[in-house]
Amino acid sequence: MTRNVYLVGAGPGAVDLLTLRAARLLERADYVLHDALVSGDVLALCAKARKIPVGKRAGRPSTEQGVINRLLVAAAQRFDVVVRLKGGDPLLFGRAEEEIAACVAAGINVEIVPGVSAGFAAAAALSAPLTQRERTRSLTILTPARARSTQDDGENWALAARHAEALLVYMGKGHARRVRDALLAQGLHPALPVILAESVETPSAQFFAGMLGDLEALCARAGDGPALLMIGEGFRQRAQALAPITPTAKRA
Amino acid sequence: MTRNVYLVGAGPGAVDLLTLRAARLLERADYVLHDALVSGDVLALCAKARKIPVGKRAGRPSTEQGVINRLLVAAAQRFDVVVRLKGGDPLLFGRAEEEIAACVAAGINVEIVPGVSAGFAAAAALSAPLTQRERTRSLTILTPARARSTQDDGENWALAARHAEALLVYMGKGHARRVRDALLAQGLHPALPVILAESVETPSAQFFAGMLGDLEALCARAGDGPALLMIGEGFRQRAQALAPITPTAKRA
Repeated sequence: MTRNVYLVGAGPGAVDLLTLRAARLLERADYVLHDALVSGDVLALCAKARKIPVGKRAGRPSTEQGVINRLLVAAAQRFDVVVRLKGGDPLLFGRAEEEIAACVAAGINVEIVPGVSAGFAAAAALSAPLTQRERTRSLTILTPARARSTQDDGENWALAARHAEALLVYMGKGHARRVRDALLAQGLHPALPVILAESVETPSAQFFAGMLGDLEALCARAGDGPALLMIGEGFRQRAQALAPITPTAKRA
Repeated sequence: MTRNVYLVGAGPGAVDLLTLRAARLLERADYVLHDALVSGDVLALCAKARKIPVGKRAGRPSTEQGVINRLLVAAAQRFDVVVRLKGGDPLLFGRAEEEIAACVAAGINVEIVPGVSAGFAAAAALSAPLTQRERTRSLTILTPARARSTQDDGENWALAARHAEALLVYMGKGHARRVRDALLAQGLHPALPVILAESVETPSAQFFAGMLGDLEALCARAGDGPALLMIGEGFRQRAQALAPITPTAKRA
């Protein structure tokens, strides 16, 4: 019999932003390996499952990924419905390729249930369109986060931002100076509007607005929750409604 | 009393990829203005609503957007729960800013429910991670489609692709030659793998693989359904599993 592992997107936080498919799978699940950021409300749907937090956050040693891979394969050999539950969408910044490869190597079938990524939920919460006709015709999503084992790449991660019109930076709050410097080095203007969206779709959601040149100060105002940065001219009107933006930053 | 209009993402097609929040709203809706691409199964959830297809597709004259805006505002003044239902996520290539502005100008509150965009569903259906640790650290989403009223911009829409690592091109199938030429002009390699995902998450879903240099032939193989193109080295393994890719294309 082919064993199945489901890689499931938990969405941005609120339980009602799960897809119907994900919610039904969680109700049927026997074993759920979940990220630290998945909310208690979402886990409550996993009524009969053994729930194992794997506490995965950016910057942990990469051996931890190997442990997750082994747990997944071992669970698939013992349980009928095994779910790997990841915040947002499982195929965006989720190291899914390593988990898929481990399952495939063990002869386990993998099925993936997409989810609403945090950037789309942040935009929705703010009524801030990600694209705008004739002005913003593309969206670029990137992260400066890297595993500890990763060699310093001279901030090559920022290259995709050079011609970005609307830019979402995931997991960037803890690297404010590095993100600002790398994006300015790519030619982005220090007066570009930035919205920091923290703990989107949770009761402690917060939004802050500022400019790219002042990213360190902006990130310092936020709390401990997971955050993403929305950067681009298209966000100016919404940023101004959150906080007056004074164009004082000088080009670095 | 503040009237509400809900801009709701219908997701990629399958009814069970709606979010719980969207499904509940559709059940409560009195009036639903929906895109042509929203599936019958999704519309069946709108049990008590008057359902108005607005048949919006790329390339229609822009006056039609004005009609939609006026319908939305008029409906909000007559009904309690008015939903504008858009395929995928409502804030990505949805001209949401115009609908939001029309509602706000009429004193109508707008609430947005995000959805799973087609690119995430296509990646899930293919088990093809959008990002990969240390190799693909960004995702760029763009479209070559433009309203008929829009001035030719010399293919500036393609600029964001120049340093893209993983690229999703929405609404590009009908513009294969233009997309290929514009992306090659940005320096993308003609041997880059391309996966064409058509009618994702519907019973007629199809996937085709080829190379950027052969984009016209690839798009000619697809049917009439909505399609997106997944372009990038990170998709090579998955593309090769769909069809052998022979690196015959020469750089233009």
